[in-house]
Amino acid sequence: MWASEPVTTAFVTTRRVEFSDTDAAGIMHFAAFFRMMEQAEHDLLRSVGLSVVQHDAEGTLSWPRVNAKCDFESAARFEELLTIEVRIVRLGEKSVTYAHRFIRDGQTLASGEITAVCCRLQAHGEPKSLPIPAAIAVKLRPYVTS
Amino acid sequence: MWASEPVTTAFVTTRRVEFSDTDAAGIMHFAAFFRMMEQAEHDLLRSVGLSVVQHDAEGTLSWPRVNAKCDFESAARFEELLTIEVRIVRLGEKSVTYAHRFIRDGQTLASGEITAVCCRLQAHGEPKSLPIPAAIAVKLRPYVTS
Amino acid sequence: MWASEPVTTAFVTTRRVEFSDTDAAGIMHFAAFFRMMEQAEHDLLRSVGLSVVQHDAEGTLSWPRVNAKCDFESAARFEELLTIEVRIVRLGEKSVTYAHRFIRDGQTLASGEITAVCCRLQAHGEPKSLPIPAAIAVKLRPYVTS
Amino acid sequence: MWASEPVTTAFVTTRRVEFSDTDAAGIMHFAAFFRMMEQAEHDLLRSVGLSVVQHDAEGTLSWPRVNAKCDFESAARFEELLTIEVRIVRLGEKSVTYAHRFIRDGQTLASGEITAVCCRLQAHGEPKSLPIPAAIAVKLRPYVTS
Repeated sequence: MWASEPVTTAFVTTRRVEFSDTDAAGIMHFAAFFRMMEQAEHDLLRSVGLSVVQHDAEGTLSWPRVNAKCDFESAARFEELLTIEVRIVRLGEKSVTYAHRFIRDGQTLASGEITAVCCRLQAHGEPKSLPIPAAIAVKLRPYVTS
Repeated sequence: MWASEPVTTAFVTTRRVEFSDTDAAGIMHFAAFFRMMEQAEHDLLRSVGLSVVQHDAEGTLSWPRVNAKCDFESAARFEELLTIEVRIVRLGEKSVTYAHRFIRDGQTLASGEITAVCCRLQAHGEPKSLPIPAAIAVKLRPYVTS
Repeated sequence: MWASEPVTTAFVTTRRVEFSDTDAAGIMHFAAFFRMMEQAEHDLLRSVGLSVVQHDAEGTLSWPRVNAKCDFESAARFEELLTIEVRIVRLGEKSVTYAHRFIRDGQTLASGEITAVCCRLQAHGEPKSLPIPAAIAVKLRPYVTS
Repeated sequence: MWASEPVTTAFVTTRRVEFSDTDAAGIMHFAAFFRMMEQAEHDLLRSVGLSVVQHDAEGTLSWPRVNAKCDFESAARFEELLTIEVRIVRLGEKSVTYAHRFIRDGQTLASGEITAVCCRLQAHGEPKSLPIPAAIAVKLRPYVTS
């Protein structure tokens, strides 16, 4: 029945390929896709009133990346406007996996994933992971792919 | 006999974490790992007399990336000197997969892979893949993990 | 009389400080101001139907920078939305000098200038300067500070 | 008399133009010159046992930039090895002005300056300038152009 159909809500944002994103091959440098994947994630967080860096009484909460990957299918060029879809493919106890798709004129250029872990930053030493606070998880849930 | 043990030759290079590689979390930004992975590949190519962009009578030969991924285990910080090992884990007909490991003081910080496809660049339109010329393949073979 | 009043038309655009623009001092890295100055110039060009890289029958016309400078008065931080004003303070025979001002909440954070020279790009060797085509100059004139 | 001849000691370092430093015009992006100017300054500081970010009992001492400028004379291309000379053209009470020159095969490609102010960083609010500690000034003096 349609009532049980999977519902996938993607967060959608855009970025234009800037000249400083291009390289001598005349196309957007592959590392710029990763920067934009992160920017799209931050746009999503901002849209629900969150930030990837949040200060509270105990210090700073942030989301170091533990994995990032991307498949590049087609090149992006200077000044093109890219649509970036972001979905959450896994909302774990301590981590979130975002899936990204870059689209230009209906064509998929690249698709990737980033997994970020909820951590308390420490001035020195490694960030320390902790369970995602409920107040944050509830705001991410609408973007979890069912 | 142990004489037939697999021999893995890694190409080894280094990069220092520059201030412009860091971010407001106080650590090296994750996209900088991808830039350095590519730089290490280019160092390897240069060490055997190749370049990732080669001009010949017919135009330009280059290696667009079709996949890149990285697992981040531990943070890198400003001014740290990172050792980067590069191995070739697959030397295909048209593509090469490089595996990278970032090491600081004997500790692995991150490990990743990049797959690049041998292509002829075209001023307009998509790069066109072609078989890796034998003169190039023979120079890469020593770094193929057996 | 009002007829002789100076008329200064500024082109106005915005950029948000992305996480990859920040550094370990917790603020936007100074080189990111230069990237944004250029991006604002490109936004201006695009708004009048031009591009900083234009292909014609004879090849490629572009605008290499010969000078860039910036005074930094106050720090910009992650996620802040910066307003960037661009004016043309000199429209020469072969070059354009753009003046930029970064504003956040009515406060000037930085002001800079970039001078770019109209050039024909050559595959090898240095770009070759040429007089700014009249069709381009006429589109830039409205932003010249009088 | 030769005893009064001006002595100019330049600190010299090198950087190779990486692929991610290039842009679609086929040359090193102008903002990469600024990143390298800063990297050369940091190399100089490191060579005398200093760092641009120093932690002490009272917090963090760093050197926000208040001005940066560069004249670009000739393009730098992928894989070229650039020599960067750094001199201190002004060692003030609270600030240092570094002058940089980029050289390739004996040819000057670009020359610039960066002025940095000695500051105590504050978690929130603006960095606060302070007189350069004597222990730091004494280490910079050899690079002051007389």
